[in-house]
Formats: sequence, C-alpha cells, structure tokens
Amino acid sequence: MCVLPSSAVHDTTLHSEPTGSAYEAYRDELVAAGLLIPLGVKGVFGRSGTFEGVIDRFDALVTKHGRALNPVVMRFPPVFARSNYEKIDHINNFPDLMGSVHTFTGDDKAHRAMLSKFTAKEDWSRDLDASQVMMTPAICYPLYPTVAGKLPEGGIRADLQGYAFRHEPSDDPARMQIFRMHEYVRIGTPAEALEHRQYWLDKTQEIFRSVGLPVEAVVANDPFFGRGGKVQKAIQREQALKFELVIPICSTDKPTAIGSCNYHLDHFGSVFGIETADGQVAHSACVGFGLERIALALFKRHGLRVEAWPREVRDVLALD
Amino acid sequence: MCVLPSSAVHDTTLHSEPTGSAYEAYRDELVAAGLLIPLGVKGVFGRSGTFEGVIDRFDALVTKHGRALNPVVMRFPPVFARSNYEKIDHINNFPDLMGSVHTFTGDDKAHRAMLSKFTAKEDWSRDLDASQVMMTPAICYPLYPTVAGKLPEGGIRADLQGYAFRHEPSDDPARMQIFRMHEYVRIGTPAEALEHRQYWLDKTQEIFRSVGLPVEAVVANDPFFGRGGKVQKAIQREQALKFELVIPICSTDKPTAIGSCNYHLDHFGSVFGIETADGQVAHSACVGFGLERIALALFKRHGLRVEAWPREVRDVLALD
Repeated sequence: MCVLPSSAVHDTTLHSEPTGSAYEAYRDELVAAGLLIPLGVKGVFGRSGTFEGVIDRFDALVTKHGRALNPVVMRFPPVFARSNYEKIDHINNFPDLMGSVHTFTGDDKAHRAMLSKFTAKEDWSRDLDASQVMMTPAICYPLYPTVAGKLPEGGIRADLQGYAFRHEPSDDPARMQIFRMHEYVRIGTPAEALEHRQYWLDKTQEIFRSVGLPVEAVVANDPFFGRGGKVQKAIQREQALKFELVIPICSTDKPTAIGSCNYHLDHFGSVFGIETADGQVAHSACVGFGLERIALALFKRHGLRVEAWPREVRDVLALD
Repeated sequence: MCVLPSSAVHDTTLHSEPTGSAYEAYRDELVAAGLLIPLGVKGVFGRSGTFEGVIDRFDALVTKHGRALNPVVMRFPPVFARSNYEKIDHINNFPDLMGSVHTFTGDDKAHRAMLSKFTAKEDWSRDLDASQVMMTPAICYPLYPTVAGKLPEGGIRADLQGYAFRHEPSDDPARMQIFRMHEYVRIGTPAEALEHRQYWLDKTQEIFRSVGLPVEAVVANDPFFGRGGKVQKAIQREQALKFELVIPICSTDKPTAIGSCNYHLDHFGSVFGIETADGQVAHSACVGFGLERIALALFKRHGLRVEAWPREVRDVLALD
C-alpha cells in the first residue's frame, strides 16, 4: 500500500515507539528557534515562513526532476470520499491511524441537547454523525477512483502533492499527525509499475544526496494493526514491496524514513476497476517524499539557520 | 468571527441555498475542461495543474501586496486542537459546519467488532472515539492561542494560508467543503484592528480589479445556526463587523463572496487571553482571500483557457 514513510526501519508501531529525550530535545530546539509552532496537540504544528520556504524549495527541486516524466499534475484536498475509503482495506489494516470526519446534522432541539453535554463537560462528540468524508491517509488514495476504467496506452503518470493524516500522537517531531507528501504515481502494466519504482529508488537517493542527505534504502513494512498485522508485515517485507529512504534525525539506531518507493501489485487496480489498454488489471507504484520530514532532516543536518547552510546545498535548493 | 466568505450577500443558509442548473452547469463545464476532478462527494474536488497554477499565481500576487506590511508568516495545518475549538463558540454558532476528527482506539477484539459492522454494512463510525483534533473552520483560528499573553508594542500582523473545512455539501462549485484561504490578521488595539480592516477593504478591491474582477463590497453576516442564529446575524450586520467582496460567478442575483474583511472586536483576545502592550484586551481583524473561489471567478470571467485570458490579467498574475 502506498502509505507515508513510517520512521520504522525495523518493525515499530505507535505503542512501541521510543519517546526518548532526543526526540523531545530536537522538537524543543525547533520550537525555540521559531521553526515549529506548538498547537497544543502532539504531532500537530504550525510552521514558520522559514520552515515553509525550505519545503517550497525542496518541493520545487522534486518537481524539476519529476517534470522529465511529463506527469499529469493533480492536487487533492486533505479529505476524500468515505465511500472510497471503505474500499481500500484501511479500516482492516490501519484503523488506529484513521481520521473519520463527523459533523452535527440535527435540529435546534438536538443542538440544545448537545450543548448541554458540552456545557457539562460531557462527551458531546457522540451527538455527531459521520460525514461523507474521511481524512486522506495517503496522498495517492484519492487518485485511483478518478482513473477507473481503461487506461490509455502506456498507462498514467501522476504528480501529486498534499496533506495526509495519521492519528499517531508522538513526541518525535518527525512523526506528525498531519503532514504533506509529494508523490509520483505510475499506473499501468506490472513492468511499467516496477520500472517506475526502480527509477525513483535511484532518483530519490540522487536528489537527497544533492542536498546533503546521505540516505540509505531499506526494505520496510507498513504499520499493520494488531495481531493479524504481523503476518501482513512479514509478507510485505518478503515480497520487498516497500523501500524506505532513511536517515538519522533524532536517532542513529532508528533512522527516519524521509521517502518511500512502493509497489502495490494490482491492489488499487482491482479494487477500483482500473485496466491497462490491453484489458489486464492495472498495477501501480508510487514514490513519496515526506516534505516535513525532509525539512526536519535538512535542519538537523545543516543547522537551524538556513543562511548558514553549505553553499552547495543552498544552490541546489535555490535558497537565496 | 473570522469565517470564510459565504456566498451569502443576503441572508442565505445551507438549506435555503439555490441549487439551480446554473451552478451545476458551471461545475460540469469545469469538470469537462479537466480543471476540477470530481471525488464522489459534493463540494470535494481534485484540481488540475492549471487550476492550481492560477491559485499559485494569485496567491503570489497577494503575498507581494501583503509583504509591505512586514507580517510574520505562519502556516497551520487543516486540523487544530479540539481544546481550542471548544473555546471559540463554533459549536454554538456553526455546529452544522463543523468537522470533528474521530479515530479507532480499541484493541483486537474491539476491532473485530467494528469490522463485523463494517462487513454487514452497519454504521461502524460509532465505534470510533473523538481524537484531539478538529478540522480548522477558518484559517486564523489556530493563530490566536499561539499569541496568548502580552503582545509586543504595535501588536501583531500575521500572513496565513491554508485549508478550512465547512460541512456544506452543495452543487455550487464555489461552495466547497474544503478550500484554501490566504489571510492577513491584525491583533492589537481597537484602532489597529479597524485600520487593518479598512486598509484591506480598499486593497482587496484594488487587487481584484487588477485581475479583471470588479467586486462589490457589501455588509454581510456569517451563517449562524438555527433560530437563535437569526438574532446574531442581525447584530453582526447592524455593527457592520463583516464585509464581503462579491462578484457574480454562477448567479448575478446571488453574487459570490471571494474575499471578506472582518472585525472581531475583542472576541479572540478575551477567549484566549491576548493583551495589548498596555494591558488591554486585544482586538483583532482579518482579511481573507478565498483562493478556490477567486480561481473560479477568474475562469468564469476570462474563460476556461488560461492562455486566452486578457494580456493585462496574464501580466498582473505573471502567467507565462
């Protein structure tokens, strides 16, 4: 599945994640420098203009590289259709990470009843109803239903960027609950999907190294839920479906994934009825750049003052 | 309150909104042109690279004008703290527009119980718990708690841009459930807040006219909920707290607000304990540019092919 990079090189989950002082220390440094702005919830931050500037420049660098593939550019919002969410097995595999958007649909009387709970500091959230949308768990999920049916010859290449949500409160500044990724997605034949994944496995390393981030590519797994999830993690690793590009941010023992390259087999093609030009179920692959994590890695590596970053990094990022 | 522009010049609410064929016709045109990508839920769209390009260029134009005020630049994500949501009266005034983010917090057994509802097509959403975050209803809400306490002399000017959510399914392409606004917020003395509002009331009209959008400034109100809301709407209008910049998009009878200039009195200052340098409760004001609506107004006014837009508009937007 095309999920966001987890900081898990080894098998980690929310509950086994270390929350040592190195995470809190870096987070506090970033806050003290004004780069991150605490918003009262773990893993939810405002960002300064400087932090956003670094993300914008890195994003532009990725776009420059991606343009060579002549992708179709699409942008999806942070929410997508509940009806599509219900098709992708996320509720089976990652229920603890989901964000389901609920709202109030009652009349004046029901409103007064909810407000009396609110005033009494009781749980008013149960007076809400599920809306038609869910938080987007991965940038490419909204794409697949939009290309249902027969693909053109040669399949599709898409350039996506947007927010993903993952309910995963943490002291690790690199484990945000809401964050952006830039993705390139390929939908087509198995060969096309695998070629895309390999292309980006090389290209991501080239891009990261060009800004002074010597990442390592490792086989990884998504944080499948519960006891049953153990088997799925093992299968995903055995089939080498997911590679992560990792680099130490707060911990050398547990380096952080700042990008990932994923092969989904025919998962999305079969769920959403996507076919290649010759009538086969489409396969897909994606690369994701974790933009906030990349900024955090850059600040860790080169220091909190952008104007003191190495000249060659500033040049590659056109920071001036 | 600093809420998003409603398309209400007159007093409209969700339920009285016209859903005539002019709205659907323009939406269908935008979809046929590939500018908007339907995602299966009313008011939730993907956008093409061209559509995003127009938003980016307009956003850059606003930023160029705003830079003269030397604002502090901050960016907030599409969710913010539930604890802060609970302080701002949104649950009283706009419960039907809220987005409350819920998630699964149970164990394997509870997961199996939820999945059996899911499989039986029963309502599984009641097995979720409220998370610590809510969808951001307006771009400037997350700002106020971050500046609690005493302000520096001269107060604060902030440049914000991000997503807001408003549960308001509609056939009007300009009434999206999730959309972006660029805001400039002033927090300080009453005089500073009012001066900011007046500055932007003039400046927004200048900016909109420079791209061929002859807006009209009108006194407006927010869509307060229910029977009690009628009084609040009347008070807000009587005090002329909210101005909207409106222009016909799908309807000349009911032109659409593409920007708004709001004076909040001491609402946020008193809720979040923000004080001016001389110890008074701070007042605030904001201007909001509704980015998707502005793009929709530009496409309506100048046509769906950006390359055929008037030369002077393309020049002002640096579209080339």
